[in-house]
Amino acid sequence: MSSKTIPVIERIMGANDRVALSNREILDRHGIHAVNVMASPGAGKTSLIASTVKALDSRRAVGVIEGDLASTVDTDRLRAMGVTAVQINTGGQCHLDANQVREGLNALPLDKLDIVFIENVGNLVCPVGFALGEHTRLGISSVPEGDDKPHKYPTIFANIDVLIINKTDLLPYIPFDMPEFHRLVRGLNPDVRIFELSCITGEGIDGWAQWLVDHTPKP
Amino acid sequence: MSSKTIPVIERIMGANDRVALSNREILDRHGIHAVNVMASPGAGKTSLIASTVKALDSRRAVGVIEGDLASTVDTDRLRAMGVTAVQINTGGQCHLDANQVREGLNALPLDKLDIVFIENVGNLVCPVGFALGEHTRLGISSVPEGDDKPHKYPTIFANIDVLIINKTDLLPYIPFDMPEFHRLVRGLNPDVRIFELSCITGEGIDGWAQWLVDHTPKP
Repeated sequence: MSSKTIPVIERIMGANDRVALSNREILDRHGIHAVNVMASPGAGKTSLIASTVKALDSRRAVGVIEGDLASTVDTDRLRAMGVTAVQINTGGQCHLDANQVREGLNALPLDKLDIVFIENVGNLVCPVGFALGEHTRLGISSVPEGDDKPHKYPTIFANIDVLIINKTDLLPYIPFDMPEFHRLVRGLNPDVRIFELSCITGEGIDGWAQWLVDHTPKP
Repeated sequence: MSSKTIPVIERIMGANDRVALSNREILDRHGIHAVNVMASPGAGKTSLIASTVKALDSRRAVGVIEGDLASTVDTDRLRAMGVTAVQINTGGQCHLDANQVREGLNALPLDKLDIVFIENVGNLVCPVGFALGEHTRLGISSVPEGDDKPHKYPTIFANIDVLIINKTDLLPYIPFDMPEFHRLVRGLNPDVRIFELSCITGEGIDGWAQWLVDHTPKP
């Protein structure tokens, strides 16, 4: 790569951060708590959002920005349960950026919302490098992915505020060393808040939903 | 992005393709069948390679190039079972490129190998855009990821030669519509060869190993 390209890359990164800051101002003006949801494909991002909306039981009003390479299946699923959701298709892009989130915010009824979930593209690598304006960076690991993921994808585990360990209902059927997994995560990120839960059985959802309520003051 | 950057991007892509072609020549000169293994984090890439080596039962000699952001856990695991493996740590890079694979090939005893598995970074998006010199592009989907993945990550499903559906042992515990999943995949890629198997129970491994033997003439 020629040295000429480096300033261009920096300018693009700088532009994303500026839009992210401006997104944050918009969110703060509306008293909204924004959560950037990052995980592997199939870890349960949409399922977690759906289960959380149910567990919140109207204590807080939720909107969702759905990021996917293609399709509207996640948005369709959330809308079918009455959740306000907008879809961003990234084409080939492997993560959401702040401009795409701005488009999503423009399409949501912000005056009526307390929480906005931003469901990122399913990917443990790329999303972590792009600020979107969120207040909380949420990672989801799922039991069938295995307990060695912090070894192999340390960046995301080191750069989240909350970690959900999903699909605990599968623990009887899969070798997964929960204490070792916690130890690896804490080694990368001593302050991360960890919740173990299952979106299928609902076990553990209430503790996470209560945390979210406690961190989202009602206006 | 200014228009000045576009030729630079094309030049980088062109360089990767040239190295990939040269990797292919090296592999062909040694009569080696190279398989680019692509999947989400935790879908079972290393498990599949380990199970395949066992099922091949010395019918073909296997070497492995392991791509990870960080750590040597996968390489350690394979070496512990006597498999020749080299580790490439990509740092932050979300996929392997042809230069990294060249380094891997340089470190392997190519004269003694029939098959080289190239285990890409766990990611359903980025690896598919980078040729490495492989003969076979292998995707792995795992049952707990859910049956809707072809909707959301169509590019990878459209651009593979073989698809492994792994973790079939979990089918009794997870809602996964197998006929619908096949239908979605075939809609994107009518010619893809599909194998259903479980690396935990070993069910289905033999059919896949036999395909590999049939497509890797012994020198």
